[in-house]
Amino acid sequence: MKVGFLQFYPKLFHEKRNLMRSKELLQDVDADLIVLPELATSGYIFANKKELEPYTAEARKGRIADFFRDLSASLDAGLVVGFAEKAQGIFYNSQMLVKPDGNIDLYRKTHLFFKEKFIFEPGDTGFQVFEFRGIKLGLMVCFDWIFPEACRTLALKGTQIICHSANLVLPFCQKAMITRSIENRVFTITSNRIGNEKNAGEEFGFTGMSQITDIKGNVLVSATKKEACVKVVEIEPAVAKDKNVTEFNDIFSDRKPDQYKF
Amino acid sequence: MKVGFLQFYPKLFHEKRNLMRSKELLQDVDADLIVLPELATSGYIFANKKELEPYTAEARKGRIADFFRDLSASLDAGLVVGFAEKAQGIFYNSQMLVKPDGNIDLYRKTHLFFKEKFIFEPGDTGFQVFEFRGIKLGLMVCFDWIFPEACRTLALKGTQIICHSANLVLPFCQKAMITRSIENRVFTITSNRIGNEKNAGEEFGFTGMSQITDIKGNVLVSATKKEACVKVVEIEPAVAKDKNVTEFNDIFSDRKPDQYKF
Repeated sequence: MKVGFLQFYPKLFHEKRNLMRSKELLQDVDADLIVLPELATSGYIFANKKELEPYTAEARKGRIADFFRDLSASLDAGLVVGFAEKAQGIFYNSQMLVKPDGNIDLYRKTHLFFKEKFIFEPGDTGFQVFEFRGIKLGLMVCFDWIFPEACRTLALKGTQIICHSANLVLPFCQKAMITRSIENRVFTITSNRIGNEKNAGEEFGFTGMSQITDIKGNVLVSATKKEACVKVVEIEPAVAKDKNVTEFNDIFSDRKPDQYKF
Repeated sequence: MKVGFLQFYPKLFHEKRNLMRSKELLQDVDADLIVLPELATSGYIFANKKELEPYTAEARKGRIADFFRDLSASLDAGLVVGFAEKAQGIFYNSQMLVKPDGNIDLYRKTHLFFKEKFIFEPGDTGFQVFEFRGIKLGLMVCFDWIFPEACRTLALKGTQIICHSANLVLPFCQKAMITRSIENRVFTITSNRIGNEKNAGEEFGFTGMSQITDIKGNVLVSATKKEACVKVVEIEPAVAKDKNVTEFNDIFSDRKPDQYKF
């Protein structure tokens, strides 16, 4: 399976440009699955819900779903895309898995970062596993990384590849995702955005360095802090079913849940 | 509080030498707390229980407890020591926290690595927090590191400093302990052994690189792969009570346990 990430600079308030830029960077890409950043269509810093609203869309219909359905079909690739969702008047920091057949699976970010709490509701979908081309994918967004329970829950549910859409500003995450791979023996794909953004009295510099790790924590491919790029690598997802660190240590059956009470 | 680790080369089957070597390296050390490696008194590779038995001891009485009680009192420092425990005929890969007043707290390794499973029983103490000089210490041994639930349980119980005695052979742990610090906002002290050991058809090279991390994952001090040494650093353990990554993100109250079901 060929998996990759798109790293680019989504411009705040420029949805159409962001969609076109994604399409342009992805043209001619040969892959089964590509992960895009968090809020890839809208940009990140919104002053309030009113300012955000024009850049929100429903998960399974409307202009954003339609655009990525077309792109997924034309590339014949699954696309994992972060976007601002509006559902019955509520906004979520969401991620869609768009498949070439037009089906869309949805994850809503569980752990909101910083002032996201003022414009989004915490996700209510939980950490679910979705199947694509016979492989189990787990979805998560940005700050979910700091909670080991996020990847753990996905992995214990059978996830082979964690698709992680991010807008990272803290410097720790990329290295932590190596730990997430090792402790769960899963592949991880982190797609992070680049560029600076300034609005509503805030300014963030996003750290790029998107990466793909294997089940032993090896970084298979990574991007620099500033490049707009697509990187693809071929992996064998089946190896993520093997949880044996040694011949006597299956790290899942070795767990002692009775001892994890507090 | 001055905290440190002792990194050295415990020689298999040479308990008396190992005790003397520990004492020698610790002489004149000025610290409140020192962590020693896993199985620091016995060495690591034992063919079977019979071979191990002469190097086991009870946790709170007998020659190993007596030796470290004396050393703790003379240094006026808490000592966390990995040793092979015998309790009612059962062997545990254990860790004692020896205090200058003679009190000893005990942890028995929960997650056994590789062929340890043939000579030790899995620990039954669970992940407990022990107080020393007003600071909450959590104990864990070596392979416990790969299970995020170990540090998580200790941290959620209030641990400020994780005392991690190790005999590491895999290359991942030291970096993973940085993630453990960040995701729990705790200090970690990993004391790892050095040297090669060969017995019973096995050979291991231990990786040294003992380290102390702060709550943000900074490595405050570390050792090389091969040096026998004691390293001490002064820390302010109270900062580990602050779980705020940002002014709106307390990483413990941000947890969503309802979403961590599988």
